[in-house]
Amino acid sequence: MHNQILVERLVILGVGLIGGSLARAIKTAGVCREIVGWGRTAKTPGRALNLGVIDRAETDLAAAIHGADILVVAVPPGAMAALFLEMAPLIEPQTIITDVGSTKESVVAAARAAFVTLPPYFVPGHPIAGNEHSGVDASDAELFKNRRVILTPVPETAHQALHKVRLLWEICGATVTEMSVEHHDAILAATSHLPHLLAYALVETLTRLDDSWEIFRYAAGGFRDFTRIASSDPVMWRDICLANPKQILAVLEQYQTELTQLAAAIKSGDGEYLYQAFKHARAARKDFLARNYSN
Amino acid sequence: MHNQILVERLVILGVGLIGGSLARAIKTAGVCREIVGWGRTAKTPGRALNLGVIDRAETDLAAAIHGADILVVAVPPGAMAALFLEMAPLIEPQTIITDVGSTKESVVAAARAAFVTLPPYFVPGHPIAGNEHSGVDASDAELFKNRRVILTPVPETAHQALHKVRLLWEICGATVTEMSVEHHDAILAATSHLPHLLAYALVETLTRLDDSWEIFRYAAGGFRDFTRIASSDPVMWRDICLANPKQILAVLEQYQTELTQLAAAIKSGDGEYLYQAFKHARAARKDFLARNYSN
Repeated sequence: MHNQILVERLVILGVGLIGGSLARAIKTAGVCREIVGWGRTAKTPGRALNLGVIDRAETDLAAAIHGADILVVAVPPGAMAALFLEMAPLIEPQTIITDVGSTKESVVAAARAAFVTLPPYFVPGHPIAGNEHSGVDASDAELFKNRRVILTPVPETAHQALHKVRLLWEICGATVTEMSVEHHDAILAATSHLPHLLAYALVETLTRLDDSWEIFRYAAGGFRDFTRIASSDPVMWRDICLANPKQILAVLEQYQTELTQLAAAIKSGDGEYLYQAFKHARAARKDFLARNYSN
Repeated sequence: MHNQILVERLVILGVGLIGGSLARAIKTAGVCREIVGWGRTAKTPGRALNLGVIDRAETDLAAAIHGADILVVAVPPGAMAALFLEMAPLIEPQTIITDVGSTKESVVAAARAAFVTLPPYFVPGHPIAGNEHSGVDASDAELFKNRRVILTPVPETAHQALHKVRLLWEICGATVTEMSVEHHDAILAATSHLPHLLAYALVETLTRLDDSWEIFRYAAGGFRDFTRIASSDPVMWRDICLANPKQILAVLEQYQTELTQLAAAIKSGDGEYLYQAFKHARAARKDFLARNYSN
């Protein structure tokens, strides 16, 4: 490793798919002297250590946090508020704190409640990566390559801390953008939270049909793609739904209206409405994704 | 080609993705002496001939149909009724007629209207294959390999004809099953028509949001998978919706109920309901697909 050391000690709280992949990517880049992994029990950090994902495993929070340059909170969304409360008395003033939570308003609210005065080195973040797998065994140094990471700095966030967290993700191959907490939550509700709900609801609907066993037998490739995200972790998605209800309900209502209009067109045999809607959707998807890829 | 000749002359009306792939698969298997492709204009059959997909291109329906052993109607669903009417006076008594339409009640109704007395050699069929592409250029000899083909014989269907159409698809590598017309349409409404509607509706919803351009920029891999079927041919999907309204509306209503219950749980913060629903959906998808693959 002849790369420049950018972080002396990176501490990852929660070495799952995201935390483990971050550790692997940073280790591969050779820009960190020590990567510490913490878990509430020895099982996960121990496994991460055995896999060579981290350099040191800790179950004691104070020992893990001590001397951290960057602290990445990568526990499931539902566990974050409690962990912030435990962390609050242990945080050293120079430590940059960031997180990987899928909803940002709830994370910032939990941080404000725990830290009372938000530390200037707190940088809320969200890597838009991950898949239907979970756990450190699925971690991958390439997980963030060409993926987007959104940072949602709050008014208190120090420029220096924001810069360093941005660099950390760029080293992992990600494209980093900044936006407000509210804007992040609205965008993710539309592009991620809503599709997950729709996929879960589809599988649930099919299981309730009389001939559900047979129905799944005839599910073709499109169906498999369509419902892949229904294999995501139910605890995490429960917590995301509970953490971002306002934005999810707003976009879900618009979706229900859209479906109701399609149903009305089918009922009345309005082929022109259906054709225009399908044509518009196909063109929009193609157009938007083409621009996305060229970015 | 030293294989046994099973079909002297296979005639494909409509050499698109499905018709072209069938021609390629049968040609590869070497079990047919001549494959004739028909189109209303010279463009598509001409292209198919140039690509080596068919042996002879026709735009005259009588010339195409004459002497056919098996006639595969592979035009878009919306064009089938008119074509049956044109075919009716030209059909020779020995010719087996099958189709590849995605909805079977509408096809059988159109055939009954055109042929008055349904020929005993009429075998309604549906290969559950295809993707978001269309046209003969996308055709693929392997398209039906390990895919399912459903045949929905009507009371008039002769056993001999059913057997031969089954063999044709089995030669393409497909697994063939038989069921009633009504059952087919209910199963396809749930596993294919509903997911397509949901994907179109999702893309439409997102395009209507104020910041839709930005929203698509943050759409991650799951979203791309989820909306891939929204790139399907709008004409074909309009026609499928118009051809199978009863079954689609029934399953769509159940889906709307499911979504409304999820929305209510999010609104009331009922984490237990969300968790159980997501857990159940994940387990069901995994279980059903595992059984499907092992079949």
